[in-house]
Amino acid sequence: MNHPFGKRFKLTYIALLFTALCSISVPSVAGNVILIIGDGMDDHQITIARNYLVGSRGKLTLDQLSLRSTAQVLTVDDENPDQAIYVADSANSATSIASGVVTSIGRVGTSAGDDKDLVNIVELAHLQGIKTGIVSTASITDATPASFYAHVSERGCENPEMMVEAENYYRLMVDCSQDLKSNGGLGSISEQLVDSGVDVALGGGMTHFLPTVEGLDQTVLQLAEKKGYHIVTSASELANQDSGKLLGLFSPITMPVLWRGENDRVAEKPEVSLLNSIHWMLGSVTYPEPMYCEENPEHLGMPSLASMTAEALSRLAGEDAGDDTFFLMIESASIDKQSHERKACGSIGELQQLDESLELALAFAENHPDTLVLVTADHGQAAQLVPERTLFIDIPVPVYSPGHLARIHTPEGAIMGVNYATNDFFSEEHTGVNVPLLSNSVGQGLVPAMVTQPEIFDIIKNHLLK
Amino acid sequence: MNHPFGKRFKLTYIALLFTALCSISVPSVAGNVILIIGDGMDDHQITIARNYLVGSRGKLTLDQLSLRSTAQVLTVDDENPDQAIYVADSANSATSIASGVVTSIGRVGTSAGDDKDLVNIVELAHLQGIKTGIVSTASITDATPASFYAHVSERGCENPEMMVEAENYYRLMVDCSQDLKSNGGLGSISEQLVDSGVDVALGGGMTHFLPTVEGLDQTVLQLAEKKGYHIVTSASELANQDSGKLLGLFSPITMPVLWRGENDRVAEKPEVSLLNSIHWMLGSVTYPEPMYCEENPEHLGMPSLASMTAEALSRLAGEDAGDDTFFLMIESASIDKQSHERKACGSIGELQQLDESLELALAFAENHPDTLVLVTADHGQAAQLVPERTLFIDIPVPVYSPGHLARIHTPEGAIMGVNYATNDFFSEEHTGVNVPLLSNSVGQGLVPAMVTQPEIFDIIKNHLLK
Repeated sequence: MNHPFGKRFKLTYIALLFTALCSISVPSVAGNVILIIGDGMDDHQITIARNYLVGSRGKLTLDQLSLRSTAQVLTVDDENPDQAIYVADSANSATSIASGVVTSIGRVGTSAGDDKDLVNIVELAHLQGIKTGIVSTASITDATPASFYAHVSERGCENPEMMVEAENYYRLMVDCSQDLKSNGGLGSISEQLVDSGVDVALGGGMTHFLPTVEGLDQTVLQLAEKKGYHIVTSASELANQDSGKLLGLFSPITMPVLWRGENDRVAEKPEVSLLNSIHWMLGSVTYPEPMYCEENPEHLGMPSLASMTAEALSRLAGEDAGDDTFFLMIESASIDKQSHERKACGSIGELQQLDESLELALAFAENHPDTLVLVTADHGQAAQLVPERTLFIDIPVPVYSPGHLARIHTPEGAIMGVNYATNDFFSEEHTGVNVPLLSNSVGQGLVPAMVTQPEIFDIIKNHLLK
Repeated sequence: MNHPFGKRFKLTYIALLFTALCSISVPSVAGNVILIIGDGMDDHQITIARNYLVGSRGKLTLDQLSLRSTAQVLTVDDENPDQAIYVADSANSATSIASGVVTSIGRVGTSAGDDKDLVNIVELAHLQGIKTGIVSTASITDATPASFYAHVSERGCENPEMMVEAENYYRLMVDCSQDLKSNGGLGSISEQLVDSGVDVALGGGMTHFLPTVEGLDQTVLQLAEKKGYHIVTSASELANQDSGKLLGLFSPITMPVLWRGENDRVAEKPEVSLLNSIHWMLGSVTYPEPMYCEENPEHLGMPSLASMTAEALSRLAGEDAGDDTFFLMIESASIDKQSHERKACGSIGELQQLDESLELALAFAENHPDTLVLVTADHGQAAQLVPERTLFIDIPVPVYSPGHLARIHTPEGAIMGVNYATNDFFSEEHTGVNVPLLSNSVGQGLVPAMVTQPEIFDIIKNHLLK
């Protein structure tokens, strides 16, 4: 008797068997890409979070991904684009990932030196009718998300009022006059988001949608609505949206983080006795008191990164309309931002948010086997996992960090030291270390053991585009 | 006509075809293991070395290994071995790799709390007649190499005169009285090396072989000769040895490193103006002058790590006597030691030594396809790749490291900042970050994308032992 499914069944069966035997997916089939970026999420941040969240012998969800690679972060000098710079910011490193081109610090989707617009993965996706989503716990106009849909010469130009003669976060003057629409440019980042055609954009940054669009008498938010975006501003609204393009703006700027140090404590300078301030071998040191992490009350009412991820996945996958292909970028932004402010508990909580979102992405990929899930970081951060006092504790000399130290009680009953000592300014430096690049098994054959950051763009493109 | 090799050929052919199709090696075949340890070689050290040695867009030999994993470093409290400690030293982390058991800081091949001897991979190899080699740029009795053949309660007990009432490097009293032979122990580390049966041991540390063996009237070196070791003390002697067991001791303690900062400069504290010492927003800072790396004159005449590797490989492989199986541990020790002393050029040179040795190991593995080559580190180190001045250079406030900064001219014409700021003591701290674990393709199916450090022991054991 012939098998009811005939020859086709047999071929399928053999193909499936072969794939199973080889334990690899066939890499040439185009499919969805979910790119998860932990801003500043280098191996120190991951180890710190692992020790806290699952214990030193435990495994985070990201630790369980079957493929591990590393990405060399590249930056060039704006005045001499042939010259390497060894430490990136989020703008230029996200531009590497989004467009495959190395650029200079502060640039969003534009080239070093000659300020050309760089084609990004979202634009390429739209050309093929592929849906796109951008999710971030930062302002949706912040450097990392912006690099996936916008082109400006300075990351600070987030809204129409921030284009010229405006001060950025560090009170430096911003000048994006060449990006003004009146000068033939594409306008500010929020204006470009509304023009981008991105299907789902969820994050913070309402502030950047309230100014008036250049040359119009309506706000960026009003323009977004006119262009077909449903606007949501709370977790409950997010859960109750119909289909269609969606813009969620849940806070004025960066979304409040999940956790903080007890009573909002941050890393502190060890205190030394008078004698020790006279000679380093004398006197004594008092290390900062150990602290617990606690929930951040300001986070209450915020949608979690996981709930934003779930909503984006459900809309992009188009379950009703059939299986649409999509590109989704999800950023846990404040691993970096909290580390700048020496807030170890804050970074740990945001890494947990990333890990929960990854779990959803992997569950989705289980049911949609052509889904490539990538996890990476844009650059390294200052936080270092160090001895909670010193390795040299038995030596009768006070030994301590010259920077700021957080001593964190971990749930497994130990104390973990996190050192912030790249400067004494109100914001720590980034670092130039390689960052992890992880993938689900769909990445087999696509993701080599080491890449430069622009090669992540190629990996995404090769899987996403037909 | 039947094929001359008949059914067996067909089966072999099918097996080979299947293997080729799946692009994986068959993991169950026992074979050689070459384990290369970069002491303190975390991703910062690797990125710093890459930027210098091959440029930020280049690839080191280790970057080209086809398999990448990461190892979580584990340590426990000696008084409460159930309690995690988050930062290791070389003794306990090398013990994890060598014996598969997590122990406490300072212990070499012994368990936390109850001080039991832990069976190591060299002992297991010898039980099966497998040859072993230990190569290090440190004293061959230093913590990392020692953990592969010795069992003492404190890493400082390197020779018979260092067992009780002796001062270690940090002027702390050492007490290994329970390890004295007269107390039923195995004696000091150098005595244990001579007793270990290791076939090739090459490194520094002559100092530890000159004292008299406990209970005998001969030195450890004399005992080594009596036990059949050829002793060599120079690069030329090393090149001219016959077969047989070999002990090479090329320097009194740690071997002098390949490179140093120009005129032996190390990282320095940025200097601030009087005004800045009054208020952090005032005055100015002078960053350390950029420096070049130069050859270290003290290294002259030393065998390179690569030449020691070549000699060890040639003796262990037993080309004349057929294809012997072997275990070889190669350590580039001073990536860590130079980082403790804030010597960025020193660490870079020692990473180059590791990379050259890896190249030899890979060439050997090409000709001996059952050779698993693993590259890893024992723990993280203080050095951080940071902006060479600051990311906030445009802000009119002096921003600088509170620690020690090296600014290195790289061959590609840029300046690289390396920050050492875990303490102001004469020796920087280790860090608790995950460390890389890399493998040649023989590791496919053996090396998962993430392991705990003791699982490296299992990987080695599973490949090495039949």
